[in-house]
Parts: sequence; structure tokens; C-alpha cells
Amino acid sequence: MRYAAGIEYDGSAFKGWQFLGEGGPSVQAALEQALSSVADAPVSVMCAGRTDAGVHGQCQVVHFDTEVVRDPRAWTLGTSTRLPPEVAVRWCQPVDADFHARFSARARRYRYRIMNRSVRPALGRQLLSWERRPLDADAMHQAAQLLLGENDFSALRSAECQAAHARREMQRISVTREGEVVEVQVQANAFLHHMVRNIVGSLCMIGAGERPVEWMGEVLAGRDRTKAGPTAPAAGLVFLGPLYPAIWQLPDEVTDAALQP
Amino acid sequence: MRYAAGIEYDGSAFKGWQFLGEGGPSVQAALEQALSSVADAPVSVMCAGRTDAGVHGQCQVVHFDTEVVRDPRAWTLGTSTRLPPEVAVRWCQPVDADFHARFSARARRYRYRIMNRSVRPALGRQLLSWERRPLDADAMHQAAQLLLGENDFSALRSAECQAAHARREMQRISVTREGEVVEVQVQANAFLHHMVRNIVGSLCMIGAGERPVEWMGEVLAGRDRTKAGPTAPAAGLVFLGPLYPAIWQLPDEVTDAALQP
Repeated sequence: MRYAAGIEYDGSAFKGWQFLGEGGPSVQAALEQALSSVADAPVSVMCAGRTDAGVHGQCQVVHFDTEVVRDPRAWTLGTSTRLPPEVAVRWCQPVDADFHARFSARARRYRYRIMNRSVRPALGRQLLSWERRPLDADAMHQAAQLLLGENDFSALRSAECQAAHARREMQRISVTREGEVVEVQVQANAFLHHMVRNIVGSLCMIGAGERPVEWMGEVLAGRDRTKAGPTAPAAGLVFLGPLYPAIWQLPDEVTDAALQP
Repeated sequence: MRYAAGIEYDGSAFKGWQFLGEGGPSVQAALEQALSSVADAPVSVMCAGRTDAGVHGQCQVVHFDTEVVRDPRAWTLGTSTRLPPEVAVRWCQPVDADFHARFSARARRYRYRIMNRSVRPALGRQLLSWERRPLDADAMHQAAQLLLGENDFSALRSAECQAAHARREMQRISVTREGEVVEVQVQANAFLHHMVRNIVGSLCMIGAGERPVEWMGEVLAGRDRTKAGPTAPAAGLVFLGPLYPAIWQLPDEVTDAALQP
């Protein structure tokens, strides 16, 4: 039997979703340990998108296979009880055996929040980065629109990125300000390593007036990662979750009926 | 010279704003230590409203007197640098010698956020309480309106409350839902010990359908604290800040021009 589950986590305490080295906990290891305890048998999970050290998840989706029969409530609440405070299972349900958390996802959404003031944030700081220079969110939003569509994002991937190619379709991107907080929201079919944080780092240079709006398009067209802005800190980044076609009958928050299977 | 300052803090790590016993840090002690370091002389602060252990502050206001001359930027940034990550000085400015952080305040505002779902919150959990039972936020809002006006709030104060009398003017109160989060916002001229958390605990009984809307009015009229609901957990509570008349020329976030001096 294959199950799909929605996972929420505060990445501050983790070395990332998956961590193959020694000396640090990973979200995946914590989750597999808790699921295996509920199943009383080893359980391995596959996720929609691995997140880096310090990056958070609002609704990461995983699938796992097990011969153990438990009802969805037992998987959700029993597993959450066995997880550390930083991780919770939001929902868990049986899913068609053809469903794959990674390959069935047609889009991914991220959010990045910046506390934009002279003093560092104290309240809610776990989910914020900090930028002292006043940011022009409107200029950042204009610049962000230059990333829309299918493009080669080589300029905005990390040196360690192992993806076979750098073509990704940027479907939506917005930059808004609410009081002292500037928020970037992005949706693409998929993302390259450090892509969101490199986009945010570049947009902040534009927001701070160090570069003109058009520079974002030049960086993208140049395909040279040494020309982009710095990688923004992990703390501000939340993986909101993947989006799947309606055929898989998953919860609304990870379903977009307009997507093709 | 008298100064006023706006203080932001994550109360999770503290025994409260002021803690007279042994064995735990207080926000006030951390702040006084940092201010004294900037002044290179002892500095004592007076706050607008003391918060309990675990309760957060978005814009607590303090005043302090010093003969040491520093510009507002040095007080703000220098003090923040010397504070732990959980506390920051948002602003600091000279203020008239007649200003008093507590006695000049004409109103105080609090926010309480509840994650209302079957699974405990992981992301942003530092600023949330958790309620498993589905809450009817509209019923809670209706019930809350029964608290408006000047009333004797004896039923909603703690046994340890040391206020001389229990009459307070509830100026605004609202309960709203956004997705899985129910938020209570309250404004009164002043609050009794545990008053907000006791109001929230009672409203949750109504929201869960355990009591009818009218019960809130009956609890208030009864003036018997043993009849009210439980005290809601500290984590969900944020002291948004006091409000002062415009005469003191403080930042917008703590000023209400409609208030009389």
C-alpha cells in the first residue's frame, strides 16, 4: 500500500531534509524513524523536493510504501507524537500506487520573508532573514517579472547543483511589502539548488538601489552564476509545498486542478 | 534626560518581563544590563505593562533616566548588539520628563493566536497555542462583544492578581479566523493579571460548543473566577504594545491621536 503525507517542519534545527554526512540530524531521518515506530517495520520516504539546511517546510509531501495497515488518523497523530517539536505530520492518506511525491508534482511553491529595518528581528526571527538597507519592493517585483516563463537559470543555480540541465519554467513570482516585512513568493515547475535564495539575493540588490530593475534580465540572460547577487540566508525560506493534478485526490493545499497529469 | 524605547522580545526563553525570584532570566534584567553597558553607568527601566513568563512583546515601551548623552541610533543599535537574540530595541528617543511608560499609557493591545487543527504546530510554534477541537470563530467573536465597555473583570483575573480593583474598560475585541489560525485581538485601558489568557480560555469553550455565546456575559456578571474557562497557554500571547496620546510625540505604532492626555 502506498501512502502520501504532508509534512510541516521548522528547519532551524536540521542539517536539511536529507543529510548524508555525519554529525547532524535530518528531517527525513526523524520522519522515517517515527513512521517506522508506528509501522513497527522499516519505512523509507521519498519527498517532493529536498530542502537545504535551515530551510523550513509548510507542506512538504512524501510518499512511502508499507504492508502495515493503519488508518490515516493513526499515521498522522501517531507519527506526530513520535516526532520532535520541530516536525509534524499534517495529513496522511492512501494514494494510487502510481503516485510519486517527486515525479507526480507539476509545480513547487516557496515563500521568502525579509525583516527590512535597521534592527534585527527578535519576535518570529526563526522564519525571517534581516536586511538593514531600505528595500523598494515595487522595484523588486518589476525585476522579478523578468524571470517569468521557461528560461535557462544557470545564473541562479549553485556551484554544487547536480541537475542535468538548468531549464525551468517560472510560473508566478511576486514581491510585496506588509509593514516592515518584504515577502517574495515563487512558483515554478521545479527549482535548481539555491535558486530561490539566489533570486532573493539578486532582487535585494535591486531593491536597495545598487542595481537597476533591468539588471535581473541581464543576469538571467548571461547564464553566469558569478554575476548574480549573493545567496540569501536559509532562515527566511519556507517550502510551501508541491502542487499535483487533481487526479491524485490529495488535499486542496497541494492540488491545482488546472495542472495536467 | 528621559528616554522612551520600544522593545521587541520572544518571551519563550524568559521567566517574564520582571522576575524577582531566583533561577531564571527576565527581559527587564537583560535590557537593563545592555543599556547600562551602552551608558557605562547603571540604567533602570520602567515598562508600560509587565508580561508573564512565556508571553511575547511586539512593542513593549519603557522609559529610563540617564545623564549619559548618546544619540538615539547609539541607544537603539548599541543596546540591540548587547542583547541576546530574543530581545531587540526597535527605537529609542528623548521624551519629555513628565512622560511615564506606565502612567501615560491610555490603552494596551494584545494578540492571541491559536493553531486550530488536529495536529500540533511545528512551523511558527513559538507564537502559537494549539487547540484540537474545531473552533467556531464567529461564535467566539459574538461572545467577545459581551465584554465591551467598562466592567468589573473579577471573573477573569487570576487568584494572584494584585490590582486594587477589577474595573477595566474593554475598548475593542475581535476574533477572526485565517485558515487554520484563530486570532483574538483585544484593546483595553489596562488589563488584570491573566485577563487576556482567561478571556481566550473562556472563548475557546464557546468556540468548541461547550458553552453558548451568552455564557460569556454570565461569567462576567458573576464576578467569580472559578466559573470562567481555563487560562490559555502563554505561548500564543503577544503584547502588541501600549497606546499614548499624540502629545508625547512617540512613533505611530504606540500613538493614538484620539486619546486624551
